[in-house]
Amino acid sequence: MEVTNKLKSLVSRLETGIDRHVPAPETRPSQLHQAMRYSLEAGGKRLRPALLLAVAELDPKPNAPDPLPAAVAIECLHTYSLIHDDLPCMDDDDLRRGRATVHRQFDEATALLAGDSLLTHAFALLAKAYADNPTLSHALIRELSHAAGSQRLIGGQMEDLLGEAKGDATAEDLDYIHLNKTAAMIETALVMGGMVAGWSNEQLTTLRSAGRDLGLAFQIVDDILDVTADTATLGKTVGKDEATEKTTYVRLHGIETSRTMVADRTKAVIAAFASLPGDTTFLEKLAQMMANRVN
Amino acid sequence: MEVTNKLKSLVSRLETGIDRHVPAPETRPSQLHQAMRYSLEAGGKRLRPALLLAVAELDPKPNAPDPLPAAVAIECLHTYSLIHDDLPCMDDDDLRRGRATVHRQFDEATALLAGDSLLTHAFALLAKAYADNPTLSHALIRELSHAAGSQRLIGGQMEDLLGEAKGDATAEDLDYIHLNKTAAMIETALVMGGMVAGWSNEQLTTLRSAGRDLGLAFQIVDDILDVTADTATLGKTVGKDEATEKTTYVRLHGIETSRTMVADRTKAVIAAFASLPGDTTFLEKLAQMMANRVN
Repeated sequence: MEVTNKLKSLVSRLETGIDRHVPAPETRPSQLHQAMRYSLEAGGKRLRPALLLAVAELDPKPNAPDPLPAAVAIECLHTYSLIHDDLPCMDDDDLRRGRATVHRQFDEATALLAGDSLLTHAFALLAKAYADNPTLSHALIRELSHAAGSQRLIGGQMEDLLGEAKGDATAEDLDYIHLNKTAAMIETALVMGGMVAGWSNEQLTTLRSAGRDLGLAFQIVDDILDVTADTATLGKTVGKDEATEKTTYVRLHGIETSRTMVADRTKAVIAAFASLPGDTTFLEKLAQMMANRVN
Repeated sequence: MEVTNKLKSLVSRLETGIDRHVPAPETRPSQLHQAMRYSLEAGGKRLRPALLLAVAELDPKPNAPDPLPAAVAIECLHTYSLIHDDLPCMDDDDLRRGRATVHRQFDEATALLAGDSLLTHAFALLAKAYADNPTLSHALIRELSHAAGSQRLIGGQMEDLLGEAKGDATAEDLDYIHLNKTAAMIETALVMGGMVAGWSNEQLTTLRSAGRDLGLAFQIVDDILDVTADTATLGKTVGKDEATEKTTYVRLHGIETSRTMVADRTKAVIAAFASLPGDTTFLEKLAQMMANRVN
């Protein structure tokens, strides 16, 4: 399957980038840098950096810089959010990507600080790697810091927790949560790819819209998998939403309607990707693959 | 006392800046923004933003931008580090700046996310407020993200925790901890003030060196106050270092030598400040006041 091979090659490029652009594990304090790398190197889908790299190579302006540091930065940001989400005061998860979560492997303080470090490193890396082009560096940081902030990524996480406590989130609450908790970083991955390639604002707007749909579809699939998958395949605890009586797309709309929502959003994503310059086959197939995924 | 009035005026300017440059408490999700503001508005010495503002007005280049957003950004960064340090898995403190810590006033998850939000907001604010000057914005973000990262602020915090667990930190370990945990952000406050003012690299180096000495002196005074002050005056729990058998300057060197170290570092700071352009009287007196402080 061609799309799988292409994805593997992007993931492998990303993993080389992690090794190059994140401090070595022996860097003082080594426990902290080991924890950062433990979580970054645990694998996962690498969806956000893969999207960024794929967009960046569609139709780059001449002399466009290497998108790899930006891809590493967004993976650092995403990984920090997972480490903090897994902490006992949040979702209290023992398992992530098939391995012990950072606070189980190390301890809570180390997990907290490793998350803080990865968040900070995302910005430090964008500032350092694109220092020759301060305008681009500034634009990337502005984009990422907005998407990761209290009114997007963290805001979505906060409302998710509050909704869990109340147990009565509405369909509108659920959209707010996932537009921010999940879609924001997927939008931003696509937009950052376009920024590195030197694309126009209009093209960035198309990417943002595709990211919004892709992010929502992604989250709805997550909710479906929580009731249909098994822990071994998923690599994290399943049935958790039901056990905690959490409001999900499946709970609000049922499995069939949820599947239809995924199909509709995915169609919109594919149409948006198809309107972009360059060979968009991989991105279109990736969107379809994300809709059909089993973990 | 003139220095006190000047400091009050800088602090008041900073507090206006917080109100202007941090999302309003009713912004969705309001619990998160309330927690961010609860901690930011709790007062404290405001040393870092006051230093930044004071340097920025010594001898600014014509058309130098307003340093206030940078001052707010560094206070957001500092406040995030306090919120996370106070969490149960870290220092487990109930009291900060004379009030309940964020996790006691709200809950742990909210404190975690409010800290994450303030860290992220520091970069978002620098990116947004100085968007007209991407080169400056980039330089400020590069400076701050380095100082706040895993090899400086967070690295110092990590080694502090590890040293506490081992209970046998050496004098060299202690310097590493405080050069990074405390001095890094004080250096950066001074340097960011010079950057906004458009100063030369040589002048920034002088500021960095003054910040290093001021930061170490500040930390040694903290260690002294932990054994000599009372909780009401200090606004946080005293005697904690002794109770936890933590390695401190006082424990390693005794009170008298610690006081001499403060005096020597403070002398170096004052000499560095005196070598800067403009009227440095306030900065020199502030350094002296920090050495003599009782809380």
